[in-house]
Order: sequence, then structure tokens, then C-alpha cells
Amino acid sequence: MYLPETLLKQKLLDFLKSDLAWGDITTDLLIPPEKQAEAFILIKEPAILAGLYESIILFSALGIKTESPYQDGEKIKENTKILFLKGKARDILIVERTALNILMRMTSIATQTYKLQEKIKTIGSRSKVAATRKTLPGWGYFDKKAVAIGGGDTHRFNLSDLVLIKDNHLILFGNLINAIKKVKEKISFTKKIEVEVCTPEEALFAAQAGADIIMLDNFSPSEVKKTIEKLEQKGLRGKVILEVSGGINFENILDYAIYNPDIISCGALTHSVKAIDMSLKIIL
Amino acid sequence: MYLPETLLKQKLLDFLKSDLAWGDITTDLLIPPEKQAEAFILIKEPAILAGLYESIILFSALGIKTESPYQDGEKIKENTKILFLKGKARDILIVERTALNILMRMTSIATQTYKLQEKIKTIGSRSKVAATRKTLPGWGYFDKKAVAIGGGDTHRFNLSDLVLIKDNHLILFGNLINAIKKVKEKISFTKKIEVEVCTPEEALFAAQAGADIIMLDNFSPSEVKKTIEKLEQKGLRGKVILEVSGGINFENILDYAIYNPDIISCGALTHSVKAIDMSLKIIL
Amino acid sequence: MYLPETLLKQKLLDFLKSDLAWGDITTDLLIPPEKQAEAFILIKEPAILAGLYESIILFSALGIKTESPYQDGEKIKENTKILFLKGKARDILIVERTALNILMRMTSIATQTYKLQEKIKTIGSRSKVAATRKTLPGWGYFDKKAVAIGGGDTHRFNLSDLVLIKDNHLILFGNLINAIKKVKEKISFTKKIEVEVCTPEEALFAAQAGADIIMLDNFSPSEVKKTIEKLEQKGLRGKVILEVSGGINFENILDYAIYNPDIISCGALTHSVKAIDMSLKIIL
Amino acid sequence: MYLPETLLKQKLLDFLKSDLAWGDITTDLLIPPEKQAEAFILIKEPAILAGLYESIILFSALGIKTESPYQDGEKIKENTKILFLKGKARDILIVERTALNILMRMTSIATQTYKLQEKIKTIGSRSKVAATRKTLPGWGYFDKKAVAIGGGDTHRFNLSDLVLIKDNHLILFGNLINAIKKVKEKISFTKKIEVEVCTPEEALFAAQAGADIIMLDNFSPSEVKKTIEKLEQKGLRGKVILEVSGGINFENILDYAIYNPDIISCGALTHSVKAIDMSLKIIL
Amino acid sequence: MYLPETLLKQKLLDFLKSDLAWGDITTDLLIPPEKQAEAFILIKEPAILAGLYESIILFSALGIKTESPYQDGEKIKENTKILFLKGKARDILIVERTALNILMRMTSIATQTYKLQEKIKTIGSRSKVAATRKTLPGWGYFDKKAVAIGGGDTHRFNLSDLVLIKDNHLILFGNLINAIKKVKEKISFTKKIEVEVCTPEEALFAAQAGADIIMLDNFSPSEVKKTIEKLEQKGLRGKVILEVSGGINFENILDYAIYNPDIISCGALTHSVKAIDMSLKIIL
Amino acid sequence: MYLPETLLKQKLLDFLKSDLAWGDITTDLLIPPEKQAEAFILIKEPAILAGLYESIILFSALGIKTESPYQDGEKIKENTKILFLKGKARDILIVERTALNILMRMTSIATQTYKLQEKIKTIGSRSKVAATRKTLPGWGYFDKKAVAIGGGDTHRFNLSDLVLIKDNHLILFGNLINAIKKVKEKISFTKKIEVEVCTPEEALFAAQAGADIIMLDNFSPSEVKKTIEKLEQKGLRGKVILEVSGGINFENILDYAIYNPDIISCGALTHSVKAIDMSLKIIL
Repeated sequence: MYLPETLLKQKLLDFLKSDLAWGDITTDLLIPPEKQAEAFILIKEPAILAGLYESIILFSALGIKTESPYQDGEKIKENTKILFLKGKARDILIVERTALNILMRMTSIATQTYKLQEKIKTIGSRSKVAATRKTLPGWGYFDKKAVAIGGGDTHRFNLSDLVLIKDNHLILFGNLINAIKKVKEKISFTKKIEVEVCTPEEALFAAQAGADIIMLDNFSPSEVKKTIEKLEQKGLRGKVILEVSGGINFENILDYAIYNPDIISCGALTHSVKAIDMSLKIIL
Repeated sequence: MYLPETLLKQKLLDFLKSDLAWGDITTDLLIPPEKQAEAFILIKEPAILAGLYESIILFSALGIKTESPYQDGEKIKENTKILFLKGKARDILIVERTALNILMRMTSIATQTYKLQEKIKTIGSRSKVAATRKTLPGWGYFDKKAVAIGGGDTHRFNLSDLVLIKDNHLILFGNLINAIKKVKEKISFTKKIEVEVCTPEEALFAAQAGADIIMLDNFSPSEVKKTIEKLEQKGLRGKVILEVSGGINFENILDYAIYNPDIISCGALTHSVKAIDMSLKIIL
Repeated sequence: MYLPETLLKQKLLDFLKSDLAWGDITTDLLIPPEKQAEAFILIKEPAILAGLYESIILFSALGIKTESPYQDGEKIKENTKILFLKGKARDILIVERTALNILMRMTSIATQTYKLQEKIKTIGSRSKVAATRKTLPGWGYFDKKAVAIGGGDTHRFNLSDLVLIKDNHLILFGNLINAIKKVKEKISFTKKIEVEVCTPEEALFAAQAGADIIMLDNFSPSEVKKTIEKLEQKGLRGKVILEVSGGINFENILDYAIYNPDIISCGALTHSVKAIDMSLKIIL
Repeated sequence: MYLPETLLKQKLLDFLKSDLAWGDITTDLLIPPEKQAEAFILIKEPAILAGLYESIILFSALGIKTESPYQDGEKIKENTKILFLKGKARDILIVERTALNILMRMTSIATQTYKLQEKIKTIGSRSKVAATRKTLPGWGYFDKKAVAIGGGDTHRFNLSDLVLIKDNHLILFGNLINAIKKVKEKISFTKKIEVEVCTPEEALFAAQAGADIIMLDNFSPSEVKKTIEKLEQKGLRGKVILEVSGGINFENILDYAIYNPDIISCGALTHSVKAIDMSLKIIL
Repeated sequence: MYLPETLLKQKLLDFLKSDLAWGDITTDLLIPPEKQAEAFILIKEPAILAGLYESIILFSALGIKTESPYQDGEKIKENTKILFLKGKARDILIVERTALNILMRMTSIATQTYKLQEKIKTIGSRSKVAATRKTLPGWGYFDKKAVAIGGGDTHRFNLSDLVLIKDNHLILFGNLINAIKKVKEKISFTKKIEVEVCTPEEALFAAQAGADIIMLDNFSPSEVKKTIEKLEQKGLRGKVILEVSGGINFENILDYAIYNPDIISCGALTHSVKAIDMSLKIIL
Repeated sequence: MYLPETLLKQKLLDFLKSDLAWGDITTDLLIPPEKQAEAFILIKEPAILAGLYESIILFSALGIKTESPYQDGEKIKENTKILFLKGKARDILIVERTALNILMRMTSIATQTYKLQEKIKTIGSRSKVAATRKTLPGWGYFDKKAVAIGGGDTHRFNLSDLVLIKDNHLILFGNLINAIKKVKEKISFTKKIEVEVCTPEEALFAAQAGADIIMLDNFSPSEVKKTIEKLEQKGLRGKVILEVSGGINFENILDYAIYNPDIISCGALTHSVKAIDMSLKIIL
């Protein structure tokens, strides 16, 4: 998900612009235009850092010098100064809130993801945590990038980079196997095909029909187990990627992880974010 | 915060566009262009509904007919069908996720706000819950609107509609009272002036200097009490709006509310959102 | 109204782009790409300078070096060189007209505002001149900023930063006092409430109902006087800001100013601008 | 200058959006969403109507029905109702100011242009009034269109549709005749070539070198006369279009018009606009 | 690649806007605003129709009624009327050129693709023709869609929907097998991995390392043959998709197709387009 | 057609952005962020170089240093290194394809134009080759600029910089001579008037009515000859510019050129482009 600074800058400045509206009326009156300042951003809880790349681009876009001993993806202790700033005082104050809002959401998502993945490893499971498309509209890039930084799988970015046949498609189309066949015939060789199934039997049919990925939607742990056994019996387990999805959270994830599905996806990674606290301090 | 449909539509279509990228490759292959469908959106938990106005605009922008027995701000029971849709099957499926993501975040924020405000009322407090500027970049309008729907105060929208002198301004400017004086002299008569203070004494000075609003930042409940007493002694309590801010959450809010500060602001309303689950079902 | 250079630049380049269309066909043929030139901008009449900040951003955005002994807000004599330029000859010529058009309008507005404010001071009045929302669509920021530079009050920036209940709202809503009550109950604590009234009696009602600002719309000077007297009798004069508005111009402004209303607003400041002449001269 | 409604609408909605910012907070609280209203726009002074097309597009874009007995370009008496509106009360109020600001500027420009052109006709002159590029940045289309509606010539739209060799080009290039030659050799056959000259002699040289249009810049009336005589002597008068420009206003225009230059251009048409008053009235 | 009309419309209107600039000055003077007309678009050569969907959206966006007996993808004979139009004469004339330019390019690409695919079929080959990323900047969606309509494979849409390790990546990274391993470890399970190779040996290594797709870059037909034999010997032919690329054209394609590589990609499909002639005729 | 770097950069980055979508997933995994590289662009066939200015702007926008011994418009031999690059390896790889696509199309158009113009010169004809409006939507600027670089005439840029009365206008308006008269009366003095005619007689009428340019549409060479003779007989040949258009290609152009029409326009210059091959090579 590498975007060069020049392109990301445009998006980040749009964020800033919507916060500035007709200009900052407070700094305008209190802070002389040329006054210089130094500042740092403090993270108050332990976290996996994310959004540093974006914050640096945003501060730099206004001519503020930045320096950080850290990188996105690093494990940070509580009360750590993660970014040092030097430049026009006005501009530091203007970017402050937008940069913190970005850092806090991205770091929170990365940290949540990391914790979930670590929990899975505690029982020796090989399953990988993945995001869903339950990202915030307009924030898809940032949400997915934070998941990746936290060690999770981004899943598809949008509606054009993976075929994902969901329950609603099948209600309209009719038949699971025919749907897979039709798609395989027409779809670009560059795309994978994923199918959402509701029963172990459907999972088997989907694998036989040639789906690349099978999403076991709202399966109980025992249904997941049963599905895997059926696929192994038919010699199909190695031919498909299994994704477990629906209602999985920090509490119940190990019940699934123990069966080693390839992927465990979890909407809460991006739709229910508990912010990690940060603040910006001016140094005289 | 009334924006007419025509203007909101542009923003909402931008959201949709970023999810569609080069087009939906799944519906393209499985759903015939002219196939019609009906569908509904189901909310699975009790909630204060928000985002319905936005969802309806988005579905309508693609020619999908909508009907809802509810309005934003209504209290909804679990497992309620909140919106009925009729139109091209392809387009319903394409809007599904973006609309749900908007509805889920806005409804979750409105519901959190409502619960917090209700909790305050249980002890007969007159304090009002308010949002902060810890909204998501690019989502300020939607986050604030959801807070308003939930019965909270939006607080300032951006850096240009309220003077808010914060600790960082004062570190740079030097003197609280002079800062208020300087701003009062220059600022448009249409704007209020708020000042963030760290001690009851500063609160008193700020009130005497003519601030319209005083933010008691990271005060303990007893400091809040002490501040209010001081202001009352000087006959200044009725002349300023008191906002309590910093570290306030569902657990400790009543410790503050009991002293009836005018406003209790809470960043978590928008930076830590636990999503309320919803889904869209196609009806054959 | 402080906007950092990086954000203003985007808006200013949009202006330039619309003037360039498919490119400058004259300089393309006559001026070699690398040819350097120096130039200056000359102001031909005495003025209060405004738009210098914007011009410098625009020239700099094309790599042209700028130098000016002046700042926005300074009183400039006729035939003064206000800005010195050095850079690619082509680019100086391309920006010339757009920069002059910005400088001329902003300087003209600032100068008009300044003269009006000075006139008021001649009789010792404390009234402050203010702009209205009769700014040019797309030019709100620049028009308001020029008013501020000229020493006037910007008034509200847009429809979201001040409640202003106008005659048309009241025709639809019905009752002045109820309207104020309804707004006070619901509006964010960060916003002021202004009401437009048509008679001294209405002004009194509005003040009693708790409006922050009262606009005396199309009042004769004697009605203004009467209104102020009534408010003073009730002890309300100090509790509200009085704005006089409607049909006020350079000729009749002192008839109002003599009664010291807080604000005298004047649409002509931005809707009827008489340009101050400037030109750009190339130095060989 | 015909732009279809669909394209103009985008530009006009951008204007509206910048005035609405985060939404209209006044109508939001006072006017119920579905409340209908009727209204009309009143013009208070006699004028040549312009901007009606744009206003109608803007109101229509929000679903407001419009009806007008007039068209752009018509001569309107004072106190005339020029546009009738019917639709959601909220939306009428929201568009009100933006539409009036557009109508007032465009009508004012058209009326000024018309009066200047009429004045010229009083002495039987065949000269045509033209605008310059001293239009407001971002408003080029609207300013020029208003001039055209008032019966004036739009002059060039931007830097790409006419070659105009100005004094600054010549300072850099060196030689008037060579400049014309170089341009004639290279320029597309679809473009005309205009040259700005400072003396009657230069005018003659320019005509001989094949310029299509000659701008007599800052000529006194007698110099204009002399130039025309020289051109007639050489049989060149009919081969070039003569434009008189620089310092021409309502007072001195007839001193030039009497010699029948083809074009008299006047920056004041767009840089010094005295607004014609209009207002919108709600009908219950 | 399904994009709903509402989203495509924005892009298409941007195209139109750049052609209209400051408005159509010819129709403005000659065609009365309300004059209605009918028209049709004629295709002069046999073709596979593409761009009809886009043209219809564009004409409809200006309120022009459209009717066509055809659909994108249909085989059309020479001198066929493919689209009938009815609406404002001005608007038909304004859209004419933009619509024709879109139709001509898309139809030409679809037709070229179709012919190439048909040629392959003549020898019974199962190879499928594919586009490359040599599409026109800003036209990626349209170029790829035209290829799909012509029966070709779109290949990847952009840099984010397929991992494609090219020669330049390997020069920088060093080792083919390690590159594949590193990518497989980190990349989302939703993406395929393609590797560009230069020799049959590299192809074998890539297959063994687990690439999903192998691009045989600039291979001679005999090298392709040799590669396929090697893969078959190792039992790997069925595990990878083989793409032949580089220097393939209408003349030599059968030399490759005979060996049944899965994909034959051909940059000329989009970078060297010979337009199929069309025109729009007004019917009185 | 000179556009300064700052303005062109925005357009070029939009191109790049659409190719990057959610970021480059290949370089992200294989190329370390800070890794530096050098590279060059190689042109494989002889050509007239065009698009170098645009490529340099694009690479520079990402901080890549560029150096070239060539300029747009130069004749380049096969296998020439036209541009040397130095910078972040990731960014060179990301820009590679977009830059090549721009260079290849622009160079191909310039080369085609040049060859056609050279062919005309072989018989001593003075006719100049011109483009049409059959450029790619969104690519008008680049297509026309490439034609200019190749030595051709750009013809009009868009619908607002030349009056061009075409057959469809006349079908709707009725009468050729009246159409010219009406336009001459109303059109700005800055614009030329061109008329498309179908017979030598119409050409004569058009010249007599005062058209500046006459387009002989789909004339046979002998009709062109006859038209020129008629105009010469009436002494009108020198008063109008003659453009020959319709069905002219590399094969038949000399049949027209021999009669020295001023302009021979050829849609194929931009609608049927055969790409000249180029590639980018990384140097370790």
C-alpha cells in the first residue's frame, strides 16, 4: 500500500482544510506569524505505532521540521515522545488536532490488530487476523494500512480487486456452483474468487467448483471444525484458503483459531476503535 | 447543521466512488443490469437512529427508492427494519456497505451520546454532554451531526467559528488575562471566546477578563466544585459558561455532573466508537 | 482568518488555472522559457494595502522570488512600488493579471473600509464598521479578510457560524420571542444568536428574550436613538450588541454613528467596490 | 458563451457550498424540513437583467420551482418582481444570499455596460464597448457573460484564445515588428493577433506588419484621431481593428467615441461595480 | 467493471467541460436555446460496439433522450445507425464531439481485441488475449472496459490489485526466488502474485517458488514451447497461469497461440489504436 | 500553449493517482523505502520527441532528479537514452508506466505530424498540416501540444476559441450567408469565424459573406482546385484561409497539397496513433 508523499499530501491537506474552514481565528490574534516553536507528540499508553508516516507528511507540507526515533509498526511504551516538531508556532497549532486524530485512530487500529494476532499465537495457531470492508467511508486507505501495520491482513481494498460472492448475490443469482462457474469463465486471470457459504456442505461445493477462497460466514467453532474435516477428506483443504467471519471478537477468537483456518476476519478492528490517548506539547 | 440533499450527495458519492474504484467486478458478472430487487436494512441492537438522512440521499442518488417509518433521532428497538429499498439489484448491492458503514458509525455515536446524557439526567443534573474536535478527519460534519442527533452539543465545528485559547496558546503568548483582552479587542462581535484553564484561580481570572466560556481542563470533581463556588462568590457564575473537559467517561461523569457545570465534553463520543451492528437483506 | 500558505496556494492556483485555460499562447511564442526578468507592482493611488500575502503566495507558487517593504494593512502613498519580483519572465507575465486583480479588489475593499471607519472616528463615535454576507460567491474569504485588514469587522463567515434570525425566518416561524427561545434551547453553547428586528419594540423584546446581538434593520437614525434609550431604561443596553444595518453609506453613516451602536454594517463594502489602480512593470 | 445547465450547476453549487460550510444552523432550528414556501426576488432599481439563467439553475438544483416573465438582457423597471420561487422553505432561504449576490453583480455589470454603450450611441458613434481581463479571479465566465448581456464585447476569455502582445512582452522581446512576424509565423490560423502600441507610429508599424487588432494604450483623444488619419492615408484603416484602452470612463468616453475606433475597452466595467439592490421576499 | 451511471456521469462531464471551456460560442449565436432536434450516430465500418453505455450517460446528463437497438459488445455492420437522440439542439451539438471521441476509441479498442481473439481461435488455440497497463493516463477505466467488451482480459487495473514482480524490481531486489518468498509471506490472501521471467529456467524456478502467474517476457515462440515442456515435466503446468508478453502483434500472434499459453498480452490493443469512423447527423 | 510546471503538475499527479489506487503493493514489499536508484528512458525507434517536459515535471513532483540532453521537438535516433533519472527506487518504479504512456503517445503524435508535414514539403507545397478536435477526452491539451511540437497547427482548442459553423449548425439554422452575417454582428472582435462548406459555390458565398476561414469538407482534389480558381477569379483567395478536411491521410495528402490550400487537417493525427516504443531501465 505504498503511496508516495506527494500523493498522500493532497488527501491529508484536504483533511486539514476542512478543519480550518475560513482560517484559524485564535492563533491569528495571539501568535505572531513568524514566531517559531518546538513541540513533541506524546503517546500515553503502550501501543503499536501507526500514522507516523502520514503525520510527518502533513506537518512537512506546512514547512514544519519533524524528527522521530520511531517508525510505524514499532512497539511503543506508555508516555513516549514519538515525534519532535520545529517550525512556525501557528502552523504547529493548526495541524495539531488533525495530526493527533489521524495518529490516534491509526495507532489504535494497529494496536487492536496486533493484540488479536498475538492472542492467536499464544495457542500456536497459524490463523491470520484480517480486516473487513467495515472501514470508515473515505478512510479505507488509512484503516487498511493501520491493520497491515498491526500485522493483520488488509483483505480486499474495494469492490474491484477481488470477486467476493456474498449471500445477497446468491439470493439474486440462485445457485452457488453456477455462480462460481460463471465467474471463473469471465473474470480476469489476475483476480481471485471468494465465496461466502453458510454450511459445511456449501463450503465443499464451493471448493469443488474452484473457488480460491471460502468464507465461512457465522459458523460456530464446531461447524468450522467439521468443514475442515470434510475438505481434508476430499483432499481439498490445501487447494482453498479458508476465511472465518462473523461475530468474532477478542473473547471468542481462540475457539476458532484452534482449528487453524487461514484467515479470521473481524469487523471490529475498524468499526469499533477505542482510541489510544496522545497529546501535543509546545516547548518554549 | 442543515445541508440540502444536493450538496450532501456530492460528498456521499465521493465516499462511494472510493469503494468502487474501477467498478464492482462481482455484481458485473452475476447480476443482470436491469434486474430489480427489494431489500431492507436491519438494526440488531437498540439504538438512537442517525445517518438515515445520509443513507437515503446516497441510495436515492443511484435511483433506488427508499421508504422508512423512522427518522433520525428516534429510539429504535433491536431487530428493527429501519429502511426499505427498491431498485436495481446491482446498485443496492453496490451502496450496501458504504451506507451501512455510515449508518453504523453515526447511529453508534448518537446512541453513546444519548446514553451519557440520560445518565446525567438520572441525578437531576442540568449539565449537557458535548463533543470535542476529536472527530475523524474528513468526518467532522457527520460525527458532529450524530452527536447533535443523540442530544449532545456539537461544540465548535472548526478552527474558525469559536475562539478557543488553549494551554499551548498560552505557553506561547504568556499571559492569560492579556490574551483574553487582546482577543476581545480584535475579534468579530459574532464570535464567542473560550479559554482553557488549569486551576480554579485561572478560571476566576478568565471570568473577570470577560471570557464567554471557560474550559476547566483536567479538573478533579472537587476542583470543579471549588471553581464554581469561587465564581458564585464573585457573582460571576451566571456570566460565563463552564465546560468541564479531560478524562471524563461513562464511569466518572456523574462525579462531575453533580455540580452542574453547563457543559461536560467527552472526546470518547467520537474517538472511541463501539459499532452497533446492522445488515442489509435482499428480499426476493 | 489565518490560513497557511500551503492551503491558500491551492485556491489561488485554481484562479490562475482558469485564466490560463490551454496555456498562454503569447509568451509561448515570444519569451524564451529560461529568460529571467525583474518586475515590480506599482500602486497608483493612496490605499490601505491588502492582498499582498495572497499575491506573494501565488508568485512564489510559480518559483518567482518576491520582496516587499510593506505588509497588508499598511497605509501606502500613491505611486508606490509595493512588491518586487524576480524569476522566469514567462511566469511573471502569466501571474500578472491574476495577482493584480486580487490585489486591486482586496486593497480597494480594505481602503473603503478604512475610510468609513476613520470617518466614524472623526465624531468620536465608538461604532465599528462591519461587512455583510453580500460578498462575491467564491470570494467570501478574500472579501472578509480585506474588510478585517481595513479595520472592519468581518461579521459571520457563513451560514454555520452564527445564528441570524432574519425577517424571512420570522415570516415563516411566526413569533420573534418564541423563535429566540427555541434557538436558545437547542443551539450549541459555542454560538451567538442574532435577531433582525424592524421596530424599537421588537428590539426590546429580543433583548429580553436573550438575543446576544440585535440587528436594527432599516431603522432611521431617530429610531436607532429611540431603541437605545428604551434598552437603557430597562438596563439592557449593556447586555446586547446592537448592529445597525440597511441602506447605510458614506454619506449617512455619521447620522447613525453619533448614537454609538456597537456595529454599523454596510453591504457596499463588498458589493460596490471601486478599484484602486495598480500595474506591473517589467524591468530590463 | 453557452454552457449547459448541467455544467454550470457544478460551479454554482460550489459557490453555495462555501456559504453553507457545516450547514445552516438557523433554518435547521426554526424551519421544519418539509415546510413549503413561495417567494419572489425584487429588483429595486431600473436595470438590464443578468444572472437570471444562473439563479434559476441554482434554485432548480435544490428542487425549487422557478418562474420568471423576464429573460437575461431585458430592460427592467425599478421595483419589479423578476423571479418567483416555490419549494422547501429551508432551501429557498439557503440559496437566497448566493443567488442575490450573483444576480446583483451580473445585473450591475450588464447595466453599466449598457449605459456606456447607449452613451456612445447618443453621438452616433459606431464604437463598441468591451470588457478587459480585469475580471474577478474565478468569476471570469460570469463577468464576461454579464458584459455580453449588457451589449458589450467580451474581449478575450483567457490567455489562450487571443495573442495579445503587451508592453511587457515588448520590453522583453525587443522589437514590435519582429514580434508580430514571429507570432504570425508560428501561431495557429484560428487565432487573431493583437498588439498594444504606445504611439501613432507604432500603430502604423503594427498594421503594416499584419496585426489583426491594434490596441491604442493610454492614447489621448487627439492621438487616437492622429492614428486613424495615418492609417487611412496608408489605406490600412479597414484592415485592422482598432481598440482604444486605458483610463476610459463614463466621463471621457465620448471624447474617444467620436473618432469611431472599433472598440473602446474599459476595465471599470468589471473591476468597479456599483451594485444594484435586490432582495428576496417570502410570501406566506 | 460495473460503475453506476451516477458515478460515471461525473467523469464524463469533466471530459465535456474541458471541451466547452468558457462555453460554445457558435451554437450560442446560431441555435435558439429552446430549439429541439433529432439526430443519430452513424458507424461507418463494421465493428464491435463499445462506449454506448458511456455516450448514453453523457447525452442523458444534459437531458437528451436516447434510444438504441444495440448494446455494447454487439457486432455492428458498416453504415449502421447505432444511437438515436432527441432533445435541445444546442446540447446535442455540444456533446457531439466528446461522445464521438469516446465511442470511436472504445469501439476501436473493442474491435481490435475481438479480431485478435478471433484470429487465435482460428487455429483452435485456447489462449486468451489480454491488455497491458499501456493504457492512456486518465483513460484506464475506459480502455480496459473496451478490451473486456471486445472479449479480452483486462489484466490488472492498477498498481494495487495484483503483485507483479518485473525485471526492474528484480534488478533492485536481487533474487527471483527470494522475492517470491518475501511477497508470499506478507501479501494479502486476496491478491495473486505474478512474476516476469526472462528464461525458461526462471519460469521453472518461479513456478516452484509458488507464483500464481508467470509472465514470459520477450520469449521467442520456441522458448515458450520449451518452457511449457519443462513445466509439464515437473507437473507444474496446471499450477500456474502462463502469460506471454512483449512484441506480440497481429502478424506473429499465432506463432505463440499454437502452444496454448493461458494469456497473450498485447500493449498495442490500447497504445496503438486505429480509429473506426463515426459521425453524428442532425435530422430536421 | 505554455502552462507553468506548477499547474501541469496537478493534472499529471491526477494521472498517477488513478494508476496507484490504494498504493503500489509490489514495491511496498520488495523495495526498501530509502533505496536509491538510477535509471534511463530508452526510445527504440527514430522519432520527434514530445512529452519530455511533462515527464520531467512528473518525476520531479516525486523528488526524482532528471537530466536530459534533449528537448521536446528534437529529432531522436533509434535506441537513444532520452532521460536520466536518479532518486528513490520506489518512486521511479511507480512513475515509470505513467511517464512512458505520456511520452509514447505524445512522441507518436509529434512524429506522425512531422512526417506528414515533411511529405507535403517534398512537393514544394506551402500547406500546413493541422489537428482536429478528434482528440482524446481529457487529453486535449496533450494531444494538441504534441501536434504543435511535431510542426502542425493545433486548430481550435475547444468550443470557445473559434466560431466554427458546421453542417449540423446549418441544417438547423437554414442559410449559410445569413448564419455568417448573424455571427459577424454578434461575435467578439477577438474571434475568427470559420465555415464548413460542401461545394465550391458555397465556398464562394462564404468568402463573400466575410468568413475568415473556409473549411472545404470532404472535397475531392479537383473540387479543391476548382474552389481555389473561383476564389482567385473573384479576388478573394487572399482574403480567406482555406482548410481542406475529411478523409485525408498519408496516402492521399499530396493530391490536395499540390493546390496549396492553407491548411490540411487530419483527424488521424490524434485519433489513430501508432505508438513508438520506449522503456525504462534501472541501472544498479
